[in-house]
Order: sequence, then C-alpha cells, then structure tokens
Amino acid sequence: MPLDPQCIFCRIVRGEAEASLVYQDSAVTAFMDLNPITPGHLLIVPNEHFPDLGSLDAGAGSQLMSVARQLAVALRRAPLGVEGLNLHLADGAVAGQVVFHCHLHLIPRYTSDGFGFRRGASGHGASRGDLDRLASLIRTELAEGGQG
Amino acid sequence: MPLDPQCIFCRIVRGEAEASLVYQDSAVTAFMDLNPITPGHLLIVPNEHFPDLGSLDAGAGSQLMSVARQLAVALRRAPLGVEGLNLHLADGAVAGQVVFHCHLHLIPRYTSDGFGFRRGASGHGASRGDLDRLASLIRTELAEGGQG
Repeated sequence: MPLDPQCIFCRIVRGEAEASLVYQDSAVTAFMDLNPITPGHLLIVPNEHFPDLGSLDAGAGSQLMSVARQLAVALRRAPLGVEGLNLHLADGAVAGQVVFHCHLHLIPRYTSDGFGFRRGASGHGASRGDLDRLASLIRTELAEGGQG
Repeated sequence: MPLDPQCIFCRIVRGEAEASLVYQDSAVTAFMDLNPITPGHLLIVPNEHFPDLGSLDAGAGSQLMSVARQLAVALRRAPLGVEGLNLHLADGAVAGQVVFHCHLHLIPRYTSDGFGFRRGASGHGASRGDLDRLASLIRTELAEGGQG
C-alpha cells in the first residue's frame, strides 16, 4: 500500500515530521503520543499506510503485537512507576479513530490516573440465547471470509 | 505454561465451561463476552494460560492479532449494523484486568452506543522535551531487554 503524503503517521515513519521515536524496524514504528492520556503513552504504527484494521496485512499485524509486547515490558521496567498497561486500537470514526493510518495505543496505567471507560446500555442483559445467536452469525461470516 | 484449573478462560478453552464459541484453533479461542459492552463483544484468548501481556509468547500474540483482524472483518459483514470496532487489552489490575489469563477484547461500535473513555489529567501538557526524555528512558529499557 503506497505511503500517503498527507498522512502525519506516514511522514513520521519517513522522518519528515517531528516525533519522539522509541523504536523502528522494517515493518513498524513506535513513538510517543503527542497528546498522552497518561505519561509514557506510545503509538505503534505499521510503516505502510494501511488505513484500518481490515486492510492491515498479516505480517504488519503480527509485528505490531510483537513490538507492543516488548514495549510493554520496557515501560514496566523504565523508572516511570508504571503499574499496568492498556493496548487500544480504534477502527473507524465511530470507534474514535482520528488518524486513518492504523495504529495501536500502548497506554501505561498508574493508580488514580483517572483513565477509564464509560459504558452505555446497548450491550447489557445478553442471555445465553442472545450470545449463541450472535456467535452463529459471526461464525457464518468468518467461514465465508476465509481464514488463515 | 500449564493450564490453570481455577481459570474460567482455561476451562472455556477446554470445553469445560459454557461459552458461545466463535472460533478455535491450536493457539487461540474466541467467544462472546458474557457481559458485553456492546452487542457482538468478543474475547480472544490464547489457549495456554499466560496470565499477562509480559508472559504471552510471540506465536500466541501473533495469532491473537491475526484472528482479531479476521473477526473484525466478519463482525462488519455480519447483519449487526457494526460501524466500527475497538481492540482493547487490559494488562494488570490497575488497567482493569479482572481475569488473569491474557485476553483481547473486540468491541463492535455503533453510533450513540454510549461507550467511550474518560481521561484523567495525568498525561496532559507534555512538551517535546518531556516526550523526548520519556522516549529515551523507554529506548534504554528496550535495548536492555533484548528485541526479536
């Protein structure tokens, strides 16, 4: 997938935009989030411009997770007082995606850091029957989409 | 890593506890979350009992992400009206981890589903100097921890 000259993450990957880099290899680049949710908040991006999770190739996805694991260990070892971590990925505007170059957030957590979720009511009260019906619908699409 | 007979996810993987299964292979198992944040909320777990992200092996991590990508595509195709998705992983109690068998949440998103984040103040106002200093600390630990 070609680089997008308008994309800030493509520009960071190529060294054309300022960033506080933490890691780079042939597949992925990691750097500090410019608007951190907590101190040490990192972004890990594929070097290629995959706009979303559906377009991300298998190799880049695998390397995103591998580097996330290594950075999680490094963040816990660094003298920041990290007590936990969240991995988070937003796929689509409704999910909170703002930059349409697929990226994984690695968010260090600290006691009383104030970060958390608010839940709506849309998923509550699912019965086993509801869950089985949903599982069946998803399995059907998974089988039709191919696996591997 | 041995299975933990007290762990609900180990029991689901082995078919000893009830679950609405969506996918299973030799490395990972996916099933409906029993307390869904939104309709279609899935959990993807390694079959082995890795308590946290730091203990997860590279192969299982890679397969978690691969299956997440395939399930994301299937969820968008299924007749649920999915408009976006979040991947989320909680590592450590302070990060919201409740079951200590590493797991990845795949949360479908819908307009006005009410799900979202609340931010604290701990990460705000980072200067480039702050970010560069943090990046340097993390790079040091990453180099000492080894890569691969």
